[in-house]
Amino acid sequence: MNRIHSPQDLKSLSRTELRQLSEEIRSLIIQTVSENGGHLASNLGAVELTIALHYVFPSLSDRIVWDVGHQAYTHKILTGRRERIATIRKEGGLSGFPNRFESPWDSFTVGHASTSISAALGLAQGKHLSGEPGNVVAVIGDGALTGGMAYEGLNNAGRFPGNIMVILNDNTMSISENVGSMAGYLASIRTKPGYLRAKSRVERTLDHIPVVGKPMHRGISRAKSAVKHMMYKSTLFEDMGFFYYGPFDGHNIDKLIEVFENTKNIPHPILIHVLTDKGKGYPFAEQDPGTFHGVSPFDVETGETPAAKDSFSSVFGGLMCELAEKDSHICAVTAAMELGTGLTEFAKKFPERFFDVGIAEEHAITFSAGLAVSGQLPVCALYSTFLQRGYDQILHDAVLQNAHLVLAVDRAGIVGEDGETHQGIYDTAFLNTIPNLTVFSPATYEDLRADLKKALYECEGVVVVRYPRGRQLFKPHDYVTTRGYYHWGAENRNPDVVLVTYGRLFSFTCRACEILREQGIEAAVLRLDPILPISEETVKQITFAKEIFFFEEGMEQGGVGEHFAMVLNRLGWKGAYHLKGITGFVKHAPMLEILHHLGLDETGMAEFVRSECSTWRKKRD
Amino acid sequence: MNRIHSPQDLKSLSRTELRQLSEEIRSLIIQTVSENGGHLASNLGAVELTIALHYVFPSLSDRIVWDVGHQAYTHKILTGRRERIATIRKEGGLSGFPNRFESPWDSFTVGHASTSISAALGLAQGKHLSGEPGNVVAVIGDGALTGGMAYEGLNNAGRFPGNIMVILNDNTMSISENVGSMAGYLASIRTKPGYLRAKSRVERTLDHIPVVGKPMHRGISRAKSAVKHMMYKSTLFEDMGFFYYGPFDGHNIDKLIEVFENTKNIPHPILIHVLTDKGKGYPFAEQDPGTFHGVSPFDVETGETPAAKDSFSSVFGGLMCELAEKDSHICAVTAAMELGTGLTEFAKKFPERFFDVGIAEEHAITFSAGLAVSGQLPVCALYSTFLQRGYDQILHDAVLQNAHLVLAVDRAGIVGEDGETHQGIYDTAFLNTIPNLTVFSPATYEDLRADLKKALYECEGVVVVRYPRGRQLFKPHDYVTTRGYYHWGAENRNPDVVLVTYGRLFSFTCRACEILREQGIEAAVLRLDPILPISEETVKQITFAKEIFFFEEGMEQGGVGEHFAMVLNRLGWKGAYHLKGITGFVKHAPMLEILHHLGLDETGMAEFVRSECSTWRKKRD
Repeated sequence: MNRIHSPQDLKSLSRTELRQLSEEIRSLIIQTVSENGGHLASNLGAVELTIALHYVFPSLSDRIVWDVGHQAYTHKILTGRRERIATIRKEGGLSGFPNRFESPWDSFTVGHASTSISAALGLAQGKHLSGEPGNVVAVIGDGALTGGMAYEGLNNAGRFPGNIMVILNDNTMSISENVGSMAGYLASIRTKPGYLRAKSRVERTLDHIPVVGKPMHRGISRAKSAVKHMMYKSTLFEDMGFFYYGPFDGHNIDKLIEVFENTKNIPHPILIHVLTDKGKGYPFAEQDPGTFHGVSPFDVETGETPAAKDSFSSVFGGLMCELAEKDSHICAVTAAMELGTGLTEFAKKFPERFFDVGIAEEHAITFSAGLAVSGQLPVCALYSTFLQRGYDQILHDAVLQNAHLVLAVDRAGIVGEDGETHQGIYDTAFLNTIPNLTVFSPATYEDLRADLKKALYECEGVVVVRYPRGRQLFKPHDYVTTRGYYHWGAENRNPDVVLVTYGRLFSFTCRACEILREQGIEAAVLRLDPILPISEETVKQITFAKEIFFFEEGMEQGGVGEHFAMVLNRLGWKGAYHLKGITGFVKHAPMLEILHHLGLDETGMAEFVRSECSTWRKKRD
Repeated sequence: MNRIHSPQDLKSLSRTELRQLSEEIRSLIIQTVSENGGHLASNLGAVELTIALHYVFPSLSDRIVWDVGHQAYTHKILTGRRERIATIRKEGGLSGFPNRFESPWDSFTVGHASTSISAALGLAQGKHLSGEPGNVVAVIGDGALTGGMAYEGLNNAGRFPGNIMVILNDNTMSISENVGSMAGYLASIRTKPGYLRAKSRVERTLDHIPVVGKPMHRGISRAKSAVKHMMYKSTLFEDMGFFYYGPFDGHNIDKLIEVFENTKNIPHPILIHVLTDKGKGYPFAEQDPGTFHGVSPFDVETGETPAAKDSFSSVFGGLMCELAEKDSHICAVTAAMELGTGLTEFAKKFPERFFDVGIAEEHAITFSAGLAVSGQLPVCALYSTFLQRGYDQILHDAVLQNAHLVLAVDRAGIVGEDGETHQGIYDTAFLNTIPNLTVFSPATYEDLRADLKKALYECEGVVVVRYPRGRQLFKPHDYVTTRGYYHWGAENRNPDVVLVTYGRLFSFTCRACEILREQGIEAAVLRLDPILPISEETVKQITFAKEIFFFEEGMEQGGVGEHFAMVLNRLGWKGAYHLKGITGFVKHAPMLEILHHLGLDETGMAEFVRSECSTWRKKRD
């Protein structure tokens, strides 16, 4: 492994050494993920596939696009980042996903599913137009193929007038019943160039049988199809214009190299279907790939992962079961995130009312709207970052319909180590642009339970309940969830400033108040919940203030803080308004670290208030 | 026709009368669209299909979901809205699309493509859970089937444990090479219940052949497939779990009724493929369905449509040709809107560099990002309302990539008669939430040309140029496009107020200034372009003002006006700020009427300034 500094170095290894290399890489990945956390099972499944790909496509002019990118550790190790692999997902270290700005070997920055074919087609078409050499390969999992965007990509790539390769990395799911029953032997014949020529010859011959009238044509047509079918099974990939090869054992480096070599010069879209085992080579992950999909640091020897703690997700899942027990109209919809959204128990208890639609957020939302229109009470649970896929569906299919449904938005806010492709920092801002929407942002488990019940039984139309990844944080000892707002610290005092916030930042604003008090500034907190719409009544609670500070774990521009300022403006408030939110992409690091850097933890908030306040005072005096 | 007040009345007609009905409806549609404008070709193509559907599914408990909804005029005529059909697309009249709040017969409010299968599945699943009777039918065109969301819908609907019907209304395009060559005769046998039983018998028999070892199993498997294939062609719909029937002549009412009757009780997902002619029965539309897809009022006798006028789209298309002539890196990408976005000439002149990707906005954007990363200069032209589908792709695939590409956003702002599903009033707000984006909003053709050149050659990263439907409006005689801002009326005066705006509203603000001056209020105008980012330098031009009015043809909440206020706040400006934008869904009416009702034309603006100004003065004095 230490001899490999770039893919070109692979050529110097014998096949036996390549296999040895795969074992060394596998150990390194297990070691690294056990220490840093990360995606284990998918990375272990793609070791041989990645080695074979870089063996056959060793040049920077070859472009490999990894779908999602959670299987790219081997790729990083082979492309000059072996020595930095221990830093992966750590602050300042390698990203857990391919990133164009991390390495020239990362063709495309990725993180969300189903984008690779579209991106690869763009790269291939670009090469085609400029006459540049090199192959373009998209590597996509069977899961990502459930997303509509992958289909849009296939539909367009199938017409590409040159070589473009899509590797279908098939872990478990059958994409289509035909595909699963293909014979490896037949496939192996098929990838020989000789076979391809034979195949074209047969097709040409069939095409030239003269057509005498329509019925004759139909008969021939059917005969042709039957002949073709005997030669190779018709798959939906072929329907979409691809040459299909496979399935192959995705852990057999020799075979994979042979297949890639045999197909890389065919001037046609190629789909190569490989079968891999998630978690391959680490028994604990092979047995339980779900748990080892994305993991926290764990014990390599025992396979023990940290005991599952309570989290917003588990509280959500628990309450969903409670409510569904009593109300037969409640349904749960999720997009390939049963475990992550805490719905495993629900799925077991209410299989009839549980719908995992695949990585298909667009469908998930419109399907939920359909359920709602038909009288059910759907709760559609998605991650904030993936909800971005459903902007149009929320607006056009759910809200315009005035359907009563709940969007449970998990991982809202900073998610930490998954980094800039996964931060849930846009939802408040983009939801803010949609009319007739109610958005709750609980700060504690207790809030989440109250908000979800309110969302289901006291609100109309589309209601969003958004909550962060992980556990609840600090709350004041006298904290009681109330409606509309929670006003902390202003009872018996005359605060100099009011801090306004929502969601998880509430914990930090409370602590910031304590810091500020110690330093002689009296501060109160207004926590918004719901955050949309913002009722003037709530805002009037603080129009006494001369100075208001708004803190937001979300995009500043277009966000709740800018809108809050406009409500104050409408009420004729003339004090000084200070807004601190997020203004750009946020890289990977632990959540608390990130909030600290953004100035959105207690010290950052206190510091912001102090500095801005004094500025204001200076001006005033 | 006059005897039909609801679908139940169809049963009283003989087959001959049904055919006569279709001719009467066709005449009414031609008449109506020639007077009101609207979707002609698609409506004429679906007359018989709609009659047959309502004949077989005459009850309110049967739910028909029309994809896009631009083919639903016959549906409206048959469901009690015949007498109001002359009001269609007119202010206060019927919507051009199905709308749940217009009629209980409209199962789902629609307007965007590819949503029908997801919505229908939700309705069907809801019925299934509550045990309600009735069939659910989605009617989707072959065009809409190019959208990924349709695939997500099929992928999920294919597992539905009951009857759900998808009618593929195929106008022209072949979805898959197999499908196009299906024999009508075979299909007709297939839809007989007797045939279905025979088919299951054969499959059961094949399934029970004992399996002896793997090679044997493979052999049988192949034989089985071959047998199935001989019986009925394998299509991708079957791969996705549907029973496939078709194709059928979509203008043969008898045949359609027979097919629907024969399949409506099969407890399985059903896909029925019908072939229709766009524009059927109106020769001018049959010959040129593109022109008669969506039309302005036209002459029924001669088929003459109003001469094509210049428009932002035509100016865009013209400039694209000019620029592509000089710069071989320029590519144009569009999502099924070649004509609408003005790219027809470009497509003819530069076929190698023109990409119509189908109704696939997600793919269009990520594909463009791929082109950009590979060194091309892509311009992706989409309608504002459809850009909503690409929020995640703009953010995650284009901007995060720092790819240099241009999004040309047509139909930005109020579009008029297409109504609330098509208004381009969200783009400024949702683009506002995305970091590192530059957004231009030209007010005139001259601006558009300048902005597009700037976007391509002077900006970095992702640049949006958004412009309205139709023609440019009034501009001041001394108007010259300048950079960053255009400041009108403040040269030699000391204005009481400054009106800030962008895009098309600029024309109205200039006129509003004139009105205000006549009434003794001196007003100046600041036009923003780009509108994002807002440079402090631009804003400083008007910090002298005591009162600022911001007018916005887009969502107020989360929009540019709220952000502009925050920039003023940051600069320490303490005057009175007034914002007038759009706050909810906007129904269909002529564009100028809508702006008038929203108070966003010159009289509305002048009135707003007058009323708010005096309020402020009263307070001050």
